Amino acid sequence: MKKIAVVLAGSGVYDGAEIHEATLTLLAIDRLGAQYQMFAPDIPQYHVVNHLTGEEMPESRNVLVEAARVARGKIRPLSEYNAEFFDALIFPGGFGVAKNLCSFAFDGPSMKINEQVQYAVKETHRLRKPIGALCIAPVLIAGILRNIEVTIGTDQGTAQAVESLGGKHKKTGHGEVVVDIENRIVSTPCYMLEASISQIAEGAENTVRAILELA
Amino acid sequence: MKKIAVVLAGSGVYDGAEIHEATLTLLAIDRLGAQYQMFAPDIPQYHVVNHLTGEEMPESRNVLVEAARVARGKIRPLSEYNAEFFDALIFPGGFGVAKNLCSFAFDGPSMKINEQVQYAVKETHRLRKPIGALCIAPVLIAGILRNIEVTIGTDQGTAQAVESLGGKHKKTGHGEVVVDIENRIVSTPCYMLEASISQIAEGAENTVRAILELA
Repeated sequence: MKKIAVVLAGSGVYDGAEIHEATLTLLAIDRLGAQYQMFAPDIPQYHVVNHLTGEEMPESRNVLVEAARVARGKIRPLSEYNAEFFDALIFPGGFGVAKNLCSFAFDGPSMKINEQVQYAVKETHRLRKPIGALCIAPVLIAGILRNIEVTIGTDQGTAQAVESLGGKHKKTGHGEVVVDIENRIVSTPCYMLEASISQIAEGAENTVRAILELA
Repeated sequence: MKKIAVVLAGSGVYDGAEIHEATLTLLAIDRLGAQYQMFAPDIPQYHVVNHLTGEEMPESRNVLVEAARVARGKIRPLSEYNAEFFDALIFPGGFGVAKNLCSFAFDGPSMKINEQVQYAVKETHRLRKPIGALCIAPVLIAGILRNIEVTIGTDQGTAQAVESLGGKHKKTGHGEVVVDIENRIVSTPCYMLEASISQIAEGAENTVRAILELA
């Protein structure tokens, strides 16, 4: 049975992992007959956002501890990820990817990227194992691997950022995936488009299916 | 298009709404051609649990604000729920149901129940509209409506609690639902059984399908 590592950036679209994308990635992995193990960096969140008002809250939370909410406790620190033990790596989206795993939300293409995230992606890629990226996560992967083809949907500014990182961007609609066969990168727009939750499920399932074909 | 109200008890299995059950309920509603609107009471959580360690954290969070993470901000205070405008009401599970919506986790069958939750359930029932309950939530509904038939899976202690509240309990396995046709209550065990996420999706889908048939 193939094992897929899923990296979460917290729990909640505005400061962490997008919950629907994360949950529906797990569902797709299970339904397609593979296993998952979740990981998250053991670092403070960039900030905490009140998801009702959109305002910043005067408190601090830890990415791993909050991601454990999605994982029902079954999650490990990203420092323990070893690409040799997994068949693929997937990043669901959410602003946490662009705030906690890297600083793209603030710095654009000149972003800093978390070192554990860099190492996980580079090692997985070096071993020729596939990497999946939903929503905004393809920008993170492009920032690490540079010369890859991905999709973030249709948003012009973000597509330009991908290109300025050295990547190639391809426009996609709901549920569609872009497969960079040479680099084994699978991406899909999810909530980078105004989407229904069924469309998120479709994008996650198509991504996981493409990854399992490459793995 | 039928409209279903979904009541969340926070965000995270140990102190709020179980995230997979909540997300997969929304997915089922969307896939089966209905609409959803989420609600949560605007009250403090009973407590905050570190989902990595299982230990209580020395902070406080608000049920509505945290539930907004699952809802991507699109959620309303439960005080605004009006049963006349909806075709059905659903409660996903999670310890938050037994800690925030009522005190079953601490007081068993002699629990106190949040007044807005009581009102929402009684009004929906009075209008002969169906109510769905996943995981531990059937205990809450039995505590309010008393003489109903539900399932919480196979756990003997919880089944006895249902009976001592005046309800009737029926054992079920993964994905199975119990439909109390007279009272229009649909329940399913979800994570009250040791389950895979695909089994949760199946239970949520079967619940929503049965509810839509009654609505």
